[in-house]
Amino acid sequence: MMAMNHPLYEKHQAVLQGALKAIRERGFWSAYLEVPSGKVYGETARDDGEAAFKNRLNKTFVIDQPAIKSTIGHEVSPYGFELGITYPQIDLNDLLETSSRAMKPWGATEVEIRTGVCLEILHRLNKRSFEIANAVMHTTGQGFMMAFQAGGPHAQDRGLEAVAYAYEEMKRVPASVIWKKQVSKTEVIRLDKTYRIVPRGLSVVVGCSTFPTWNSYPALFASLVTGNAVVVKPHPGAILPLAITVEIARDVIKEAGFDPNVIMLAADSIEKPITKELVTRPEVRIVDYTGGSHFGEWIEKNATQAIVFTEKAGVNSMIIDSVDDLKAMTGNLAFSLSLYSGQMCTTPQNIFVPRSGVRVAGQMMSFDDVAKAIVGAVNWFLGDPKRAVEVLGAIQNEATAQRIEAAAKDGGELLRASEKAINEAFPNACVRGPVILKVDATDANAFMREMFGPISYIIATDSTAHSIELATQSAKELGAITWGLYSTDCGIIDEAGEAAAEAGVPLSVNLTGQIFVNQSAAFSDYHVTGCNPSGNATLTDAAFVAGRFRVTQSRMPSAAAMSIETKPVVETVTR
Amino acid sequence: MMAMNHPLYEKHQAVLQGALKAIRERGFWSAYLEVPSGKVYGETARDDGEAAFKNRLNKTFVIDQPAIKSTIGHEVSPYGFELGITYPQIDLNDLLETSSRAMKPWGATEVEIRTGVCLEILHRLNKRSFEIANAVMHTTGQGFMMAFQAGGPHAQDRGLEAVAYAYEEMKRVPASVIWKKQVSKTEVIRLDKTYRIVPRGLSVVVGCSTFPTWNSYPALFASLVTGNAVVVKPHPGAILPLAITVEIARDVIKEAGFDPNVIMLAADSIEKPITKELVTRPEVRIVDYTGGSHFGEWIEKNATQAIVFTEKAGVNSMIIDSVDDLKAMTGNLAFSLSLYSGQMCTTPQNIFVPRSGVRVAGQMMSFDDVAKAIVGAVNWFLGDPKRAVEVLGAIQNEATAQRIEAAAKDGGELLRASEKAINEAFPNACVRGPVILKVDATDANAFMREMFGPISYIIATDSTAHSIELATQSAKELGAITWGLYSTDCGIIDEAGEAAAEAGVPLSVNLTGQIFVNQSAAFSDYHVTGCNPSGNATLTDAAFVAGRFRVTQSRMPSAAAMSIETKPVVETVTR
Repeated sequence: MMAMNHPLYEKHQAVLQGALKAIRERGFWSAYLEVPSGKVYGETARDDGEAAFKNRLNKTFVIDQPAIKSTIGHEVSPYGFELGITYPQIDLNDLLETSSRAMKPWGATEVEIRTGVCLEILHRLNKRSFEIANAVMHTTGQGFMMAFQAGGPHAQDRGLEAVAYAYEEMKRVPASVIWKKQVSKTEVIRLDKTYRIVPRGLSVVVGCSTFPTWNSYPALFASLVTGNAVVVKPHPGAILPLAITVEIARDVIKEAGFDPNVIMLAADSIEKPITKELVTRPEVRIVDYTGGSHFGEWIEKNATQAIVFTEKAGVNSMIIDSVDDLKAMTGNLAFSLSLYSGQMCTTPQNIFVPRSGVRVAGQMMSFDDVAKAIVGAVNWFLGDPKRAVEVLGAIQNEATAQRIEAAAKDGGELLRASEKAINEAFPNACVRGPVILKVDATDANAFMREMFGPISYIIATDSTAHSIELATQSAKELGAITWGLYSTDCGIIDEAGEAAAEAGVPLSVNLTGQIFVNQSAAFSDYHVTGCNPSGNATLTDAAFVAGRFRVTQSRMPSAAAMSIETKPVVETVTR
Repeated sequence: MMAMNHPLYEKHQAVLQGALKAIRERGFWSAYLEVPSGKVYGETARDDGEAAFKNRLNKTFVIDQPAIKSTIGHEVSPYGFELGITYPQIDLNDLLETSSRAMKPWGATEVEIRTGVCLEILHRLNKRSFEIANAVMHTTGQGFMMAFQAGGPHAQDRGLEAVAYAYEEMKRVPASVIWKKQVSKTEVIRLDKTYRIVPRGLSVVVGCSTFPTWNSYPALFASLVTGNAVVVKPHPGAILPLAITVEIARDVIKEAGFDPNVIMLAADSIEKPITKELVTRPEVRIVDYTGGSHFGEWIEKNATQAIVFTEKAGVNSMIIDSVDDLKAMTGNLAFSLSLYSGQMCTTPQNIFVPRSGVRVAGQMMSFDDVAKAIVGAVNWFLGDPKRAVEVLGAIQNEATAQRIEAAAKDGGELLRASEKAINEAFPNACVRGPVILKVDATDANAFMREMFGPISYIIATDSTAHSIELATQSAKELGAITWGLYSTDCGIIDEAGEAAAEAGVPLSVNLTGQIFVNQSAAFSDYHVTGCNPSGNATLTDAAFVAGRFRVTQSRMPSAAAMSIETKPVVETVTR
């Protein structure tokens, strides 16, 4: 099978080739510009996007897929208003049947065509980044800038990365080969073998409430490009960003001549959740999940008819050993703790500092002074109300707000209380600053648990070695998605590197300036290792894509028997 | 990290490069010669191998690994004598602790070193092919030639194939990169990132009683080369071939300077099985299983803490539509039905023939005449007692022998009774020829079930389309690992190809001469698709290896800050 000259495949060649180069090199690369600038996205893009979002409110989200008569939807913006959008409610049997039917021609078509379609979907998602940013902002509570970047171009880059990995794996399987085995001096057996890429089966992507697009796109695109039909099951609190995504994808798929039910939306509500039934149905062969650990573990244990990829939660650690520039360190950390009110799977929770203090530019500084400097940096950073509101965003759900209150009273010495900041544009927004507590390493009950949200502990340890030991223990028991380290000592950096590899946590060392432990860059950073309880999958590696398709083969004696002296021919035809 | 010049890696470069080329092209290739010839293996190799095997009998198999005092082992050769070998019995806690400890330095070493060690193990296994052939023969009941080929060189090729796939996947992950992001006109953020390949964790390989080496080597080597420690849990009836394998592997690993407990033997007995406990232990992160469907499904459902790769069983179909040369077809089929008394996961069970007959060289031949021709070919083929005994081998276990008896009385018209042949060299061997029954397609109870062993049904269908439909239904419900088709009609061949892709079964068309539906060639044939209940994994594709290792990363601002004008440097360092 030769590479098809499908128009969409041709149109996006440069992006595909760039992505393929990027996944081999894993340096900096990005296909979709992260600057929400009129020069890039068009001068009216920002206003158009906001208008498009507003036009969605208080209406039924129309999506032309089989549905029952009732609708669902109770999304509330963390900025303090109800979205009032309702979505078609699906019948599970209908959904799976429709989806299975749509999968057949999609799964049977050429890799290049599916790749072209996926790249076109990403391209259109990119054009709609402002609308999606508003949808992400008003479901997750992210600040606008973050909602634009993480929910738009960065999510699109992650989706593209998955397309590139999957494309490459599929292309490694030859389309056909002439198999020749010499069985005697004169006799050669010749078989013509053809290999067919087939989808594994129905793929369900379960989205989360904090990063509905960023965490779903890799799975969504990896499954789609490998020929599976995809059912998108958003978190009931963050349906809109994925509903828009599904809408765009269906448009492109339909325009390319396929049944748009190759991708379907399966929205549900907190009152009538469908995920457990959905992910354990025998028709479902791939499940991707992002969200809380408890439910993630339930899926891992119960969706045994499928391959399951999870990103759950964990307890991230920051290990402070020694620094040259205290202000650079505390400034960087203050941003990491404040960003999206700590509602990131990558936010540090536990900050380990030796009880005896930290060497700062060669001089010992006491534990309390280091703690004070961290708190001071957060206070300074959030002292600018405009910046504070933009960076903190809003609290996505009530449980997190309550956890902040509870944490302040539940173990440890309160170093910094969580303030309620006022967002002037959205006076009803639930805006909260970080709560910071001081605890001793002996008080494991306080910090050896996941406290999702803007809640951090500065923990007094016996030594940096002890800090590393506690971080390791917590990663192994509770999972961890990031570790940060500040040290001027190469020996300590190596030691932490070994421990991080052992604990299966990506390590960021001595970050200052405009780069943060929370960030995970597409095409370069492997997000989640699969080596600890925070998840079993990585965004994105070969293991994330390779099992989503399978190979079936056919072999038959070559029609024209040829002697072994025949001139060499091209025997392997690549896909 | 540069490619290491490790002596074992250097020694086996040609084999590695050959294997890497072969997995890209998937044409014919083999590293280990399948001919049991003195010219290849040394003039005394055959006698030495037999003597080495005999020297194992009625002794304790000495293996220097932690064990409790008692021993186990009740292997009985299907050729009619007790092996009398006992094996050290393990303590599960000890085993897992020892294994975990051994994994650390093994998992931390360079990919090239592990690759070199694995290639050396394969090399030594190859030298011991005659000894292993005897061990395989006298545990599985295979004839000597098959035990040599499938248990020796073909198994080694399958192991090498897995090493090549895993090596390639690991090499695709860069060792390090300089990540440069321009954040303003003048400012560039530079991070040095390093990526570390880490093992997923303890790997348990559960062997089967019929192909203890062929079905275990891919998993064993894929896990080993990716840095995991491997626990080999043989079937209680076929321990010796894997015990010898583990012994050889431990020698090589030890000589290379590693703890030999990187690979350990966990033999058990039918009375005190350990598999359920072993595969569900939290320390175990990878499970590979070959064997019966029932237990395979149990593992898939219960070993949810691990990634699980299974090859279970199924019901294979042969679809006869039309032929040019009846004799060539029946002769080929007779061999496939007889080989190892049908105790292969690839043996056809259900032979679908239209009730109205088959077009043979342009003339219609009745169903009964076709059935008679098949039976006649089997009779002729097994009419030569020496050949019969060599091809049939012996029945591996009593349950299969009983199933043969039962099948003859349990539905259908007996076209051919299973004979008890005499093996003169082993008069107590349990040798049985195929039983062949005629049933109507309406009698689904008779053939829509797995009847492991030399039991076949010739099934009268409404048409070839009906045959394909029944084969599809049976593959979807019961699994299938092979389909055969005989047709002179291109339309039918295409139709069956579509159905096989849909049912997830490899299809062999019009095989005659020295190539059989039962055979699956390393480096070319994908064995098991994962698309039907016969298993979830394929030997070997990227999905079989990619999840066995993980990547952890470390990132740190570049030590020497450099301006953007700096001359280009090599930014990505490959592994």
